[in-house]
Amino acid sequence: MTTNSLAPTGCVLLIGNEILSGKTQDVNLQYLGSQLASLGIRLLEARVLPDDKDIIVMTVNQCRSDFDYVFTTGGIGPTHDDITAQCIATAFGRELILNEDAVACLRRGSFELNEARLKMAYVPEGSTLIENSLSNAPGFRVENVFVLAGVPSIARAMFETLAADIAVGEPIRSKNIDIHLPEGDIAAPLEQIASKYEDVEIGSYPFKRDGQFGANLVIRGTDEQQLQKVLAEIVETMAELGDEATAGL
Amino acid sequence: MTTNSLAPTGCVLLIGNEILSGKTQDVNLQYLGSQLASLGIRLLEARVLPDDKDIIVMTVNQCRSDFDYVFTTGGIGPTHDDITAQCIATAFGRELILNEDAVACLRRGSFELNEARLKMAYVPEGSTLIENSLSNAPGFRVENVFVLAGVPSIARAMFETLAADIAVGEPIRSKNIDIHLPEGDIAAPLEQIASKYEDVEIGSYPFKRDGQFGANLVIRGTDEQQLQKVLAEIVETMAELGDEATAGL
Repeated sequence: MTTNSLAPTGCVLLIGNEILSGKTQDVNLQYLGSQLASLGIRLLEARVLPDDKDIIVMTVNQCRSDFDYVFTTGGIGPTHDDITAQCIATAFGRELILNEDAVACLRRGSFELNEARLKMAYVPEGSTLIENSLSNAPGFRVENVFVLAGVPSIARAMFETLAADIAVGEPIRSKNIDIHLPEGDIAAPLEQIASKYEDVEIGSYPFKRDGQFGANLVIRGTDEQQLQKVLAEIVETMAELGDEATAGL
Repeated sequence: MTTNSLAPTGCVLLIGNEILSGKTQDVNLQYLGSQLASLGIRLLEARVLPDDKDIIVMTVNQCRSDFDYVFTTGGIGPTHDDITAQCIATAFGRELILNEDAVACLRRGSFELNEARLKMAYVPEGSTLIENSLSNAPGFRVENVFVLAGVPSIARAMFETLAADIAVGEPIRSKNIDIHLPEGDIAAPLEQIASKYEDVEIGSYPFKRDGQFGANLVIRGTDEQQLQKVLAEIVETMAELGDEATAGL
């Protein structure tokens, strides 16, 4: 069922009341999920947390111990509700200190470097900055915790910077195939196939198009040859059930 | 900082490898977040979990003890990767049994009721079914845990059914206002206002439109008069800073 249990594991923490209240539709998780898969990091969990210091500190400490990598988004701006840096410092038992390199980044901007903006240059002692091409305010890394912005374009730019610096596993590849039969008709033969391939994860996602029920099957794993084999077996099985399955990438 | 700490609390568990892999963009959380707010339930956390029995069981048990209500989405279909009902049964130490009312629901459909489809009528002993207008397969409730479909339209239809049956708090209202000044310029006066109103949550979300920086402020709480007062104070303060703030709903 699980893909390559030796691969490094990851967890994403999306920080911000706006995601829990329904004001904001998060899009960072989908981006990070697909990027981590291509780096061979198994994203095993994501959590959406409110702007609450106790909850963030407790969760960061639990997750940095449970997973190889933790990625946070949100809460690193200049306003009172941006508390992520302080929470990470508390979680690690480190001081929040003014980082001169971060100050230099902020000075590139045209805005006056007032107290509020200077707050964005305070990071936990011993942090490595994560610069990016879109914003003068950097993210930062403390040990296995990577702290990114919440604004999607900036989160992406920061992830591109950090991706070069982390140890990765075999890329997790996937194959897609559309079956034009209702899920209930393919469930039993599909389970038989799934049970034969322990290192391959097969997901079935139902759809209804033009009044017809079908399922999009996703086959994931690190071994390209094995994925091809499973895909071929599914195509053959579905043909026997009377469907001409359409294999995608 | 937190809105009405006496209100019932909620947690959402989004279950499915497809959300963590980046294949699927979740939209259920935004819907549930806004619905729960209008019911006066404070959504304090959401988690995205893989199709892994141990992880789901452990998380359900932790969350049903930590929060007043837990809502899950995903994993209640007929295929091998649909394991939510079994996990909920295990978490509660109950048997997974064939529910005759659920069988009756499934019989409404035009499909043959084979073993795979019948799987959708197995729910933990003592569950209450959550019927819905879109699908013949029901969701179910065990104590404070509500189990919904992953398909967004069906999750919504199920939520509409269950919403009538849960004890709720004062609706959490919100006001929106756009400030046409960069966040760094409004952070200090905004913090002063935020620190005066403990029962009101003020969030600041930066934007850039037509090359101009600004921030959307969200004021949340249960007391309409207090929200109006905070809004007026923000508008006055921003006017002093030179901005004509645009108040929304």
